[in-house]
Amino acid sequence: MTRRVHALAFVLPLALATAPAARAEGGMWLPRQMPLLADELRAAGLQVDPAKLSDLLSHPMNAIVSLGGCSASFVSPDGLAVTNHHCVVSHLQYNSTPERNLLTDGFLAATQGEEILASPGARVFVTTAVRDVTGEVLAGLDGVGDRQRHDLVERREKELIAACEEPGGVRCKVVSYFAGLEYELQTQMEIRDVRLVYAPAAGVGNFGGEVDNWMWPRHTGDFGFLRAYVGPDGKGADPSPGNVPYRPRHYLRLAEEDLDPGDLVLVVGYPGRTFRHQTAAETRADQELRMPAGIRHRESLLAILEQAGAGDRAVAIKNASRIRGLANYLKKYRGTLEGFQRGGLLAAREVEERRVRAALAGDAAASASFEAALAELDRHLQRDLATRERDELLEWLLVSSPLLSEATRLHRLALERGEPDAEREPGFQERDLPLFEGRLRRAQAVLEPASDRAGLRHFLLLAAALPAGQRIAPLDAQLRATGAATPEAQVDALLDRLYAGTRLGDLETRLVMFREPLDALLARHDPMIQLAAALWPLHEAVEAREKETWGAHSRLRPEYMRGLLRLHGGKLAPDANGTLRISIGQVEGYVPRDGMRYTPQTTIAGVVEKHTGEQPFVAPARLLAAARGGEHGPYADPNLGTLPVDFLSTAVVTNGSSGSATLDAHGRLCGLAFDGNYEAMGTDYVVMPELTRTIHVDFRYMLWVMDRVDGAGRLLVEMGVEPAFAEEVAAGAP
Amino acid sequence: MTRRVHALAFVLPLALATAPAARAEGGMWLPRQMPLLADELRAAGLQVDPAKLSDLLSHPMNAIVSLGGCSASFVSPDGLAVTNHHCVVSHLQYNSTPERNLLTDGFLAATQGEEILASPGARVFVTTAVRDVTGEVLAGLDGVGDRQRHDLVERREKELIAACEEPGGVRCKVVSYFAGLEYELQTQMEIRDVRLVYAPAAGVGNFGGEVDNWMWPRHTGDFGFLRAYVGPDGKGADPSPGNVPYRPRHYLRLAEEDLDPGDLVLVVGYPGRTFRHQTAAETRADQELRMPAGIRHRESLLAILEQAGAGDRAVAIKNASRIRGLANYLKKYRGTLEGFQRGGLLAAREVEERRVRAALAGDAAASASFEAALAELDRHLQRDLATRERDELLEWLLVSSPLLSEATRLHRLALERGEPDAEREPGFQERDLPLFEGRLRRAQAVLEPASDRAGLRHFLLLAAALPAGQRIAPLDAQLRATGAATPEAQVDALLDRLYAGTRLGDLETRLVMFREPLDALLARHDPMIQLAAALWPLHEAVEAREKETWGAHSRLRPEYMRGLLRLHGGKLAPDANGTLRISIGQVEGYVPRDGMRYTPQTTIAGVVEKHTGEQPFVAPARLLAAARGGEHGPYADPNLGTLPVDFLSTAVVTNGSSGSATLDAHGRLCGLAFDGNYEAMGTDYVVMPELTRTIHVDFRYMLWVMDRVDGAGRLLVEMGVEPAFAEEVAAGAP
Repeated sequence: MTRRVHALAFVLPLALATAPAARAEGGMWLPRQMPLLADELRAAGLQVDPAKLSDLLSHPMNAIVSLGGCSASFVSPDGLAVTNHHCVVSHLQYNSTPERNLLTDGFLAATQGEEILASPGARVFVTTAVRDVTGEVLAGLDGVGDRQRHDLVERREKELIAACEEPGGVRCKVVSYFAGLEYELQTQMEIRDVRLVYAPAAGVGNFGGEVDNWMWPRHTGDFGFLRAYVGPDGKGADPSPGNVPYRPRHYLRLAEEDLDPGDLVLVVGYPGRTFRHQTAAETRADQELRMPAGIRHRESLLAILEQAGAGDRAVAIKNASRIRGLANYLKKYRGTLEGFQRGGLLAAREVEERRVRAALAGDAAASASFEAALAELDRHLQRDLATRERDELLEWLLVSSPLLSEATRLHRLALERGEPDAEREPGFQERDLPLFEGRLRRAQAVLEPASDRAGLRHFLLLAAALPAGQRIAPLDAQLRATGAATPEAQVDALLDRLYAGTRLGDLETRLVMFREPLDALLARHDPMIQLAAALWPLHEAVEAREKETWGAHSRLRPEYMRGLLRLHGGKLAPDANGTLRISIGQVEGYVPRDGMRYTPQTTIAGVVEKHTGEQPFVAPARLLAAARGGEHGPYADPNLGTLPVDFLSTAVVTNGSSGSATLDAHGRLCGLAFDGNYEAMGTDYVVMPELTRTIHVDFRYMLWVMDRVDGAGRLLVEMGVEPAFAEEVAAGAP
Repeated sequence: MTRRVHALAFVLPLALATAPAARAEGGMWLPRQMPLLADELRAAGLQVDPAKLSDLLSHPMNAIVSLGGCSASFVSPDGLAVTNHHCVVSHLQYNSTPERNLLTDGFLAATQGEEILASPGARVFVTTAVRDVTGEVLAGLDGVGDRQRHDLVERREKELIAACEEPGGVRCKVVSYFAGLEYELQTQMEIRDVRLVYAPAAGVGNFGGEVDNWMWPRHTGDFGFLRAYVGPDGKGADPSPGNVPYRPRHYLRLAEEDLDPGDLVLVVGYPGRTFRHQTAAETRADQELRMPAGIRHRESLLAILEQAGAGDRAVAIKNASRIRGLANYLKKYRGTLEGFQRGGLLAAREVEERRVRAALAGDAAASASFEAALAELDRHLQRDLATRERDELLEWLLVSSPLLSEATRLHRLALERGEPDAEREPGFQERDLPLFEGRLRRAQAVLEPASDRAGLRHFLLLAAALPAGQRIAPLDAQLRATGAATPEAQVDALLDRLYAGTRLGDLETRLVMFREPLDALLARHDPMIQLAAALWPLHEAVEAREKETWGAHSRLRPEYMRGLLRLHGGKLAPDANGTLRISIGQVEGYVPRDGMRYTPQTTIAGVVEKHTGEQPFVAPARLLAAARGGEHGPYADPNLGTLPVDFLSTAVVTNGSSGSATLDAHGRLCGLAFDGNYEAMGTDYVVMPELTRTIHVDFRYMLWVMDRVDGAGRLLVEMGVEPAFAEEVAAGAP
């Protein structure tokens, strides 16, 4: 809803990475930086011209697409895109019925005609152009106040976007690299007709479930296939039977060679956010305050949602994706905190900051800018921390209650509609409304009033216990108005009123609200909308402070960056920001603790070993039979002597990287990145070369499952692979 | 109390071991078999004449002693013996006071004069002679009935023992190898004055506790030191201030070279029992019936004892050693069962049996003997299984209630006293009474009536629910006699009477009972003695059947053995039976599951890593400081670049092996065996060369802890090691 501080790219060097190779491994590089790394890449075995990797309109980078939150890549001339199973899971859920559980059983469209629409709002974004707009964004900003600086930058970005976008799915955005040193205008083709083509059963795609999530050794076949459709004119179009498969300019070929330990791999995709270039003080606040609170709040909400579904399968299904999301991030935050504490990452950050100071010691002007920037960044940090608990709870009220979250978004939309389009907050402009509506429809799948109420109750009680300086005044007023005696009784009375009166749970009502002006919306006297409206001034005040902070950061962090770039001779990857990146690594295991080593490849024997018949370790019978029979066909690895399943590399990923294509030295698809490892969860902050790994599914396991287990020969042929098991599968194993 | 079926050595070949090296690794060999393996040993790097290892009266075998349940070895000319920490833990417990917890803090006698008596009944047994007595034991037994065969063998063994033993600690026993093919008379010197010299803190000796028990990677410093004392005449004597240190004929020297992966090691000690040579049908009964029941009963009793101590620290302390024992065996049985199921050990057993049959196919007579023996063994098995549940509960009544167990033993002793000494059951003869009394005194430490009652209650209720054909009639009578209506009420009424009336919890009373004839004992009308007396006829009947079974086994198993020995050309290690053995292996890791490898050495970094400050991971502050400071002195391993802690080898151990000396290729002490690994718990039944490992503490860790952490320089000097840290430790680190 607002630009959060974390949404910025803060640039500091990779504290623990010293050798050039390690430095190349640690970064999520911009494609245009590849020539900088040409020597390292050639030494690591790259068989493609590094300059080729810089060209976004050419092979292979042009084949790499974003799904908005996940990455994917085209693997056929007819718009077939491969991504992770967990990136198509919402589509499987959306298309499931009580009779036909695609989530459990998987889905395979026997013909192109049987490919089914993904869930509303599904998108494929193909990057088609990028242009440096630093000069246009920053012109004449010297001496401008921070809030005004924010507003001016935002307005210029909007103008650039408005001038860039075109009907037929041409979408544009302005992104910033190196914490505001550079701005870039990116043009993407937005494909709105996305269909589900194939996903293996949950016993493959989510084998190991939450137990194995973030863990090695891993045996998950985390892949799934979508197809992009466009209008007959080749332009982006709403879903329609008359649409045709999109024909990408370029698509990936499958690897032709086996993948072995030590082999070079490139992970290409759209990683979301990293915070490697925060100041040490900011990192300390994250470690000591924000992460522990985030863990605590997630634990509470998770327990509430699990409790709610314990006796009621329908409720459990409603809450499944929220639980999955909470659990996933809970594990991530716990692991990150553990990594921070065990790995001494904060200390590493502090050492790094001292190194920067030492490097700048000879240049009085640069040194002074650096120190002034650091001091001012710290003042902003302290101001944010002063109301941290209140501000966090304001957010958690929305997270805990999807109904209140919908109410808040709808109220805000109605507010914004009162402004000229160009003045509206990003996310609430006319251009955003189709996505807004898709999200509004999708929300229906998770609305469950009893769980909603239980979650909201927990955070309302926490809010009622906030210290004096951090009260949520409008909430206090609503609680007092109930007339009840104790905070508990007040909260329960408020909740009674909210859930008895709100009609936000009804999709048709929300769709009408979505189009209503503010006065009409308020005239409904929906108590959930009323609560959202009451809280709005506080949200607005927080947002105003954050915009001012943003303005200050956009002014201060580049000062910091200049020193850093000088220190590293310009050879530094900017923090991830949702744009297309290349991470470089090699297939390699690691030592998780004294006395043991994780080897870098798992095999089908491990699937059989882990299969217990109890969730989450239930492999499909047909897979087990083929595995036990040693039916590996051409997909076996000659060195392993068996079928590979997953592998580790020293490349780095973060949220958003899911589904990233993993390319071999020839630029061919040899796997899909789908997870990071538990020991290196702090990697969003600091890369630890000896521990940071990416977990990939091996392309040979994917092909074997498609061929031998699921009979997806049609897709293999489309990708240029000759099926080896057509007869066996037709004969119909269990 | 009786010869249990498992107490025999049943001989079948090592099913999964095929290569000669693997075969040598899997066995617990008799010292006299070493020349058979001379080629393998030399190829593996042995620098000592293999024939030397056969001489029990020479170095190094003469230095290897038994503690009765643990192994140890002399490491100085003054009777200093090293064993595992967990083998001296009862002595630490016995000598602890509320003011001075030796268990937690460890113990170091600053001078020889300050060495303290171990707990009553502590013994050191030095093997001084062995003589083959097969002819004397088996003469004229052909055609004799099974029960009579048992009694005759038992009488001859007693006669041999009586003729062999002498005052001054000369103790003898007859043991059987290869399931009754061979009998041997062993002479041991029994040392009765055993003193506690040194044990590190629990944070070293039991670091990792139950969590790490059976587990790799391991970081336990499982070592402790005792000293053997004898009378001034050099003969075994009761503990007395006038005694002097025993001067062993031979003692071990410490290794002079570093130990590396691949190095040969010999584990020498007194392994208790293995069952590798049971029939497949017997193994099936163990897997499907006995082990699951043993696990269930242990789980129940463990939960009861833990519950009893949950709110009461004094009770928790009383129950600690019982809990530890139950938990240890529970983990072992669970792991064994898991190993059986995962490793397909039963199938391996069945394959092995078929191989034996195939090998005998050409010899009609041998084949017929083999088949007849198998069939008759199976009939005995089926007879035992018919009352298995009842017989198991009879045992568990005693295990669950140490008071009832004491009552049963005292009642039996009084019964046996009515017989001439030579006719008494082994364990109840005059020669056994000092040990009997020691055990009776030691029992005091674990007698806790409330826990006793809670445990007994559980098993009485199970007994009350036994099926019709397996009722415990005398118990039924006692329960009916309470007049209560339901089984629960009956059990509770019986328990009320038992615990209100018994005086068995009083040590002085038990000591008087210990000397009482039967009529005097019964005239006490102690209800616990009465229950024991009531149950006695059933115990006696079970024992009679077991003796008959024993007689049959002693007749049948050798038939089986002959074929096996022919198949293996006589190169076969007999099952362990508590006698001195040599297990051969090399330092080597393993692959516990797909995608990971356990490396064979752990280091001090792992101790620091595991230390959480919460039990069982609390390393002493002084150790942590020295570890963090990298103060490894001469004990660091040049290849590892740091201090080694524990290591894995392919040697095999079982209960009783604890404390076994680990010798390097020069026959010098390079470690102590202290555990097996979880994945290979089925190793008592079948050795799996790729998984079966022994866990050892590295001698360099032991020396470093002694030198740098505990300041045990006196003992280092006694062992011929120059302390490196005398000054630092004197200066007194934390």
